[in-house]
Amino acid sequence: EHGQWSTNPARNSSSRTYDELIPRHDNFADRHIGPRKTEIQDMLRTIGVESLDGLVNKTVPESIRLRTDLKLDPPKCESEVLKDLKEIANKNQVWRSYIGMGYHNCHTPHPILRNVLENPGWYTQYTPYQAEISQGRLQTLLYFQTLVCDLTGLEVANASLLDEATAAAEAMALCYRTNKRKKFYVDSKCHPQTVAVVQTRAEPFGVEVVVCSHTLMDFSNKDVAGVLFQYPDTDGSVEDFQELVQKAHAAKTLAVCATDLMALTLLTPPGEFGVDIALGNSQRLGVPLGYGGPHAAFFAVKENLKRILPGRLVGVTRDSSGNEAYRLSLQAREQHIRRQKATSNICTAQALLANMSALYCIYHGPEGLRHIANRIHNSTLILAEGIKSAKHELMNPGIFFDTLRVQSNGLGAGIKQQADNLKINLRHHADGSFGISLDETVEEQDINDLLQIFGCKLSAADIAEDLQRKGLVNSISNSQFKRKSAFLNHPVFNSHHSETALLRFMKSLENKDLSLTHSMIPLGSCTMKLNATVELMPITWPEFSAVHPFVPVEQAKGYLEMFKDLEEDLCSITGFDAISLQPNSGAQGEYAGLMAIMGYHQHREEHHRDVCLIPTSAHGTNPASANMTGLEVQPVKIASNGDIDLVDLQRQVEKYKDRLAAFMITYPSTNGIFEEQVCEVLELIHHHGGQVYLDGANMNAQVGLCRPGDFGADVSHLNLHKTFCIPHGGGGPGMGPIGVKKHLIPFLPSHPIVAMEKERRGGVVSAAPWGSSSILPITWTYIKMMGATGLRLATEVAILNANYMAKRLENSYRILFTGKHGFVAHEFIIELKEFKAIGVEPGDIAKRLQDFGFHAPTVSFPVSTGIMIEPTESENKEELDRLCDALLYVRDEIQDIQDGRVSVEDSPLKHSPHTAGVVMSSIWEKAYSREQAAFPLPFVKPESKFWPSVGRVDDLYGDKNLICTCPSMDSYGDYVDDEQAMR
Amino acid sequence: EHGQWSTNPARNSSSRTYDELIPRHDNFADRHIGPRKTEIQDMLRTIGVESLDGLVNKTVPESIRLRTDLKLDPPKCESEVLKDLKEIANKNQVWRSYIGMGYHNCHTPHPILRNVLENPGWYTQYTPYQAEISQGRLQTLLYFQTLVCDLTGLEVANASLLDEATAAAEAMALCYRTNKRKKFYVDSKCHPQTVAVVQTRAEPFGVEVVVCSHTLMDFSNKDVAGVLFQYPDTDGSVEDFQELVQKAHAAKTLAVCATDLMALTLLTPPGEFGVDIALGNSQRLGVPLGYGGPHAAFFAVKENLKRILPGRLVGVTRDSSGNEAYRLSLQAREQHIRRQKATSNICTAQALLANMSALYCIYHGPEGLRHIANRIHNSTLILAEGIKSAKHELMNPGIFFDTLRVQSNGLGAGIKQQADNLKINLRHHADGSFGISLDETVEEQDINDLLQIFGCKLSAADIAEDLQRKGLVNSISNSQFKRKSAFLNHPVFNSHHSETALLRFMKSLENKDLSLTHSMIPLGSCTMKLNATVELMPITWPEFSAVHPFVPVEQAKGYLEMFKDLEEDLCSITGFDAISLQPNSGAQGEYAGLMAIMGYHQHREEHHRDVCLIPTSAHGTNPASANMTGLEVQPVKIASNGDIDLVDLQRQVEKYKDRLAAFMITYPSTNGIFEEQVCEVLELIHHHGGQVYLDGANMNAQVGLCRPGDFGADVSHLNLHKTFCIPHGGGGPGMGPIGVKKHLIPFLPSHPIVAMEKERRGGVVSAAPWGSSSILPITWTYIKMMGATGLRLATEVAILNANYMAKRLENSYRILFTGKHGFVAHEFIIELKEFKAIGVEPGDIAKRLQDFGFHAPTVSFPVSTGIMIEPTESENKEELDRLCDALLYVRDEIQDIQDGRVSVEDSPLKHSPHTAGVVMSSIWEKAYSREQAAFPLPFVKPESKFWPSVGRVDDLYGDKNLICTCPSMDSYGDYVDDEQAMR
Repeated sequence: EHGQWSTNPARNSSSRTYDELIPRHDNFADRHIGPRKTEIQDMLRTIGVESLDGLVNKTVPESIRLRTDLKLDPPKCESEVLKDLKEIANKNQVWRSYIGMGYHNCHTPHPILRNVLENPGWYTQYTPYQAEISQGRLQTLLYFQTLVCDLTGLEVANASLLDEATAAAEAMALCYRTNKRKKFYVDSKCHPQTVAVVQTRAEPFGVEVVVCSHTLMDFSNKDVAGVLFQYPDTDGSVEDFQELVQKAHAAKTLAVCATDLMALTLLTPPGEFGVDIALGNSQRLGVPLGYGGPHAAFFAVKENLKRILPGRLVGVTRDSSGNEAYRLSLQAREQHIRRQKATSNICTAQALLANMSALYCIYHGPEGLRHIANRIHNSTLILAEGIKSAKHELMNPGIFFDTLRVQSNGLGAGIKQQADNLKINLRHHADGSFGISLDETVEEQDINDLLQIFGCKLSAADIAEDLQRKGLVNSISNSQFKRKSAFLNHPVFNSHHSETALLRFMKSLENKDLSLTHSMIPLGSCTMKLNATVELMPITWPEFSAVHPFVPVEQAKGYLEMFKDLEEDLCSITGFDAISLQPNSGAQGEYAGLMAIMGYHQHREEHHRDVCLIPTSAHGTNPASANMTGLEVQPVKIASNGDIDLVDLQRQVEKYKDRLAAFMITYPSTNGIFEEQVCEVLELIHHHGGQVYLDGANMNAQVGLCRPGDFGADVSHLNLHKTFCIPHGGGGPGMGPIGVKKHLIPFLPSHPIVAMEKERRGGVVSAAPWGSSSILPITWTYIKMMGATGLRLATEVAILNANYMAKRLENSYRILFTGKHGFVAHEFIIELKEFKAIGVEPGDIAKRLQDFGFHAPTVSFPVSTGIMIEPTESENKEELDRLCDALLYVRDEIQDIQDGRVSVEDSPLKHSPHTAGVVMSSIWEKAYSREQAAFPLPFVKPESKFWPSVGRVDDLYGDKNLICTCPSMDSYGDYVDDEQAMR
Repeated sequence: EHGQWSTNPARNSSSRTYDELIPRHDNFADRHIGPRKTEIQDMLRTIGVESLDGLVNKTVPESIRLRTDLKLDPPKCESEVLKDLKEIANKNQVWRSYIGMGYHNCHTPHPILRNVLENPGWYTQYTPYQAEISQGRLQTLLYFQTLVCDLTGLEVANASLLDEATAAAEAMALCYRTNKRKKFYVDSKCHPQTVAVVQTRAEPFGVEVVVCSHTLMDFSNKDVAGVLFQYPDTDGSVEDFQELVQKAHAAKTLAVCATDLMALTLLTPPGEFGVDIALGNSQRLGVPLGYGGPHAAFFAVKENLKRILPGRLVGVTRDSSGNEAYRLSLQAREQHIRRQKATSNICTAQALLANMSALYCIYHGPEGLRHIANRIHNSTLILAEGIKSAKHELMNPGIFFDTLRVQSNGLGAGIKQQADNLKINLRHHADGSFGISLDETVEEQDINDLLQIFGCKLSAADIAEDLQRKGLVNSISNSQFKRKSAFLNHPVFNSHHSETALLRFMKSLENKDLSLTHSMIPLGSCTMKLNATVELMPITWPEFSAVHPFVPVEQAKGYLEMFKDLEEDLCSITGFDAISLQPNSGAQGEYAGLMAIMGYHQHREEHHRDVCLIPTSAHGTNPASANMTGLEVQPVKIASNGDIDLVDLQRQVEKYKDRLAAFMITYPSTNGIFEEQVCEVLELIHHHGGQVYLDGANMNAQVGLCRPGDFGADVSHLNLHKTFCIPHGGGGPGMGPIGVKKHLIPFLPSHPIVAMEKERRGGVVSAAPWGSSSILPITWTYIKMMGATGLRLATEVAILNANYMAKRLENSYRILFTGKHGFVAHEFIIELKEFKAIGVEPGDIAKRLQDFGFHAPTVSFPVSTGIMIEPTESENKEELDRLCDALLYVRDEIQDIQDGRVSVEDSPLKHSPHTAGVVMSSIWEKAYSREQAAFPLPFVKPESKFWPSVGRVDDLYGDKNLICTCPSMDSYGDYVDDEQAMR
């Protein structure tokens, strides 16, 4: 019988003869899970356990074990799941959408679509913390930052944020941090979803958001932290904000401009009229709409704000040979060590999408971008003229770029009907007026259709003749706003305009970056499992990718069906009662979850509850998120076995019992252990009226074995990019939906534009109602193909793989924490403290592993002197053995130093990673051979070796920590902020 | 104004204001053509010509210049062309097809689909003549050969042929060559298209094909060359051919078995009952149907026939360091030096598809394949039982694998109606019976639908119960045919069953192979231009990929519309009156074209016309093709300037004037020159009643400048994989349609199953009516996006690029031939004869270029002592300069030897290519530095260098010629068989 798992009768329950004669075509779990049955037997023997069940018995506490299979559909084959999903996708209707509001249809250049977005060489990359094997995407992100700076006219831009609205909220928080003022102006012509997210974020800080026309803003009291306005505004008008900025600056108020990169190819950039911060969405630069995301938001600041810029920042430095190298830099910026005083918990970027936008600009170049912008603008001029000629009122009659607001003088219903007939979406303002935003995909027929909708008898061609005669009076180029400064002068934006040139450039970037296509990426807490092709295929189907997030929900029935189905499945898996898909990252999930808890307390009028207990081993986002929701963070100690110190917990609970709002716990713990006392702990919290936030980073160790909703969690986020197969994209996108128990449902996020579930009335955390909708098919597909048995098996094998590696390494390294039976969960920490004495740092081992073609495990998290290894279920025994062999080889190199055979300065550990340039140089003065440097073990072969493209990045040029990360509770023991996965 | 070409007013004729205000979105020609406008100006200056028009005036003879633009649609943008093509594609109907006949629906594993078929890293590779930078696909092809040998039970298999029917024709030719007997038996239960192609091929040899039941075959006269039978046969029966084979062998007749690899996982392989040759289609191993192709046919023989095995054969050898290496081997086999006595002109393989099938087997492994085969077989058993129970007659009641033939006893019309209602295609036999072939995509519902069609009241599940009770009497496993031998025991077929493992394995293979994603591949006569993403995207649309070639043409309306449109465009471009899309390769096009000429002569009863004149510079396929059509080849000399020797031509024409059937000419010539006297030459031929076959290999130098149909060609093939952007796929697929003038139309290929144009009544050359239909969208899309101006510009820039390179090199190398104004056409030859004296061979230069990251130009063709460079229009000036710099650097290295500074043995030229293993070894005893070896110029950077994965392949282990090629007319001067592109 075929299929490695199907021989287990308990798991193959059908008794039909048909199924015996014609068993399932293919078993996706066999493809997702790395080890074959025989390998599993071997590994079980190695760790001294009879069976996978036996292993689970020794790792997961009896008290929380799930007794039945998860309630999910039977597993589907790859072909079935695609067929089913296609049927669902077909329920979406792809209309032409001219809704605008920060989302615009665009042409993704096909070479970028196929060779970046659809290419595992790009999308399976991890966040570029190991700079030496990540130069390709670091370089591309640097181009992204460059183009943002060029187009906005500001000095420093980050490597992207989650979306435009959260970028605006970050700007608000930055202003507040800068001057501590508790008032923030928002121009009423900002996009409504932006206003809503800013309001949600401001509230826990006690910052009052005043939404009004910028003409009414008064700064004279010097009590305003910042002012946010949109340029061009949500109606389409291009206003002159120079005076406003001057007034704000005179009162030491920061000026924040939400803007549009495409418009800025024609318009004077905000940096040139003095704004401090510019932000927006880069989606229209080549990224599909995807019903709201993922896209890369941009965020640029003046030089003086760069140290408090939120998010990741790529910088240039030098490597050990003095060559230029790129890395995540400025990671020691103030915000990152503010822990519970943080005003931001932002970790993840939208690297894959930022890179697509950068490559879009590289492909088109400045001239091409201007060409596209002019087409859009001139189309809009023609449309405006036609609409006016049909006697409608243009509500933004001055200068505009691509957007019009039209009052139709009582003909609204007819216009809507006409638009519906032509399957065209317009924006519908509350006052009955219409918004129309044009984009690069608009062709002559589209304009003619729009003219027809508005009852204009002239054709676009007729109007063009007429306009030309009149002299294009409303054109930006004839206005004060005309951009005079050049942009994208860097050669990279002027060299790759043929497809051949672009393709080779992209390939050369890809080939510098280690991804899952090369070898395992054993990052503890980051779960770099297989991102199966079949899971990724649907995201570029037009039925998913070409839908604007604010279309009437009747057009998104396919999406809604998938959401509902996915929510149900995630509820089954977690034991929660409802899921919100809105949060775009794990950290945003934490924030949304804590907001729900606070909403619940406030609803019960328990306003005194304002303390959040967090173990010191927690991910750094935990305290930051707590602070963002207005909670006071109190740390809980960790015992020497890695568990929560129950005595300290008891003490803290006692101390804060009246104020106890929440307890945050990661389960299994960040130390890689299923703590036995978890039920007791959670009961204790509940007993004192606290709510339990369970950090779902390690949910992949629980799926099918236990459910947070069953053993006491009230809310939890799910890192879909860890447990549920959304790829890491080289540093984003991620997704962090939250699951809640029934009592918290009313406090889940809502949305100001799209009507979601009525009972949800929480604050808005993302610009789009369901976050990064277009990547949710990945998770949906994964669950449908694995089914209950496949998912449980994946968890079991993940635990087996970790234990197998720990077993192979335990005689050579100190495995820091194990459970009561001596087993680890799905990941484990190797303690390297003892090597400090001879001068060997965890980072040396991490870099040395690159010489073997491996990405390092997580370095210095959660224990500053350790590394944490998480193999995942997708790696087979051969690959695990290779990594073990490499680690054992490294251990011998350490031993050489310990035994005095080699000085630490002469050890390969200190000179790693070795580049091809170094190893092939005529000059070789190392104390070891070239072969030891580059081909230390037989599996590292010259013909297939993955070469680091630069030598070790020079820290003197950067910060103390190599790694970009969120703040952690590092003052309490060995735990430091560090190596944080995309949260 | 945007777009580098749009400023030429002559080429942008619209005068609408609208088009001024809103110019075209994007200009595909800008993306396809490498050099920017400024680069073109620079290059024109370098070669001393004013403009592109001026260059054309100096290269293309005035007498043949086209005076107007080609009549084509205006160029479309990428988004437009996809939209238009999607509309056409939607006119195809994708029904469930159970027609069989060698074509079966299958599941292409998604990781293979995306990472091989849709990946330019695989599909833009060239044929693996340069073994050192082609190890990935050579290795994969070796796996293909291995699986074919394992499954057929024979000793040697080639790396694929064009399709099953031509493989059968090759088998017939091989038998004929072996024993010179002029009778060939074909069992009447072979697929009809196979029979037709064998008949077409046999006729010019004078071989009589006798089609009859194998039970009636008589070998006693010892006059039978071979016998072909099908196992399982076209009706589905598995017959015992052991006795037949014994009888044949007793009479020294060869036994040829057409078979099915999937069936052979369950059936005794033909090698075990003594056949000499086994062949078939490997399509169902993971390759989409694609309305007929491309797919890889397989061909396996007994050990004793390996030296006359047609097609390419990958073999294992060793490299300069003694490491194992793969290469095309046995290229000196007898057939290859038979020139005009050749019985085969086969050059190209279907490498990309063979590799997909090999990877399919690697992913599934032997157990997985058996699982799939058992599902198919058991489904067929159930279906057979159901059909019998519904009182229909099973015409193959014995043992079958997946196919049934059913006589419905008068209910035929109703059954067809039912099938149509369910959108199911069955095979319709002439006697009113039905054929049904099941495949791996068949699920329970499909079987139930089929049962319903045949009026069976039982469900598949019911029948399964019943069958199980009865004991599966008809099952292969209970029959004498049950396979007992193991297969696919090699570790590669048992190691990569998880997607992660497969993905990494595929990536490691891809990364060993240089493709257009790395650098230019400047192969003279092979035209490695851009294969744009947008052109490749449609081929995996299900509307194109999932259509069986023998569906009723009403279901293929989209295909037919595209064919018609493409034929019209190709007629416009070439000046011909009709196109046949049937030939699957250039060589097959030659054969089909010459067959049309012979058909014409015979129709006019000019049976005495049997001589074909061919210049000695011709590609080797020319004489082979001529011989295959029964023509006597007479060579025509080449003058010292590279042109045809007019005096000799006159002499030959005079000598053979009564017998003159055809003249074959390549234009521009293989020497890279537009011969001025072409009109005279062709008139001379016509004057003496001959027909002109123009070899279209260099059509890319003519498009938009001149048309073969205008200046005297009667027929020509078009290498769509050269001129028209079909990628080379690492050694196939290719496409070689032919264009003809009106008088030849009746002699174009027809088809025995699908009704094509009525007036065409020529022989059948391919199994599928329109050859490799599914890749024709590539060419269609290319032409639609380029339009007349874009296509002409491409040709002009191709000529410019060649002339620019020639100019940069002319002071250092001898450019062998130039036209009367001193310019070359689109390619040029560098004569290296002078370096022979110091021991430097063309091959040394070719291998040394690998150290610079370049694929060598064409080596030793058409001049044995030269290399031929063709840059194509898609390469920009920077890349051309890099190649020139590399060639100049190499010239300096030669000079070092010439001047006595370095001995030839010590020169890097002799040790190239240098692998990472060699350069990084501790031991370095070369006379030059490691840097000179590996990084000879600044653009060869350690961090981005493409490394050859093995050192120079050892020729002592192989043949004299490194390169697999077709025979050429090498006995007449300097021209040798060689470095032939896929023809």
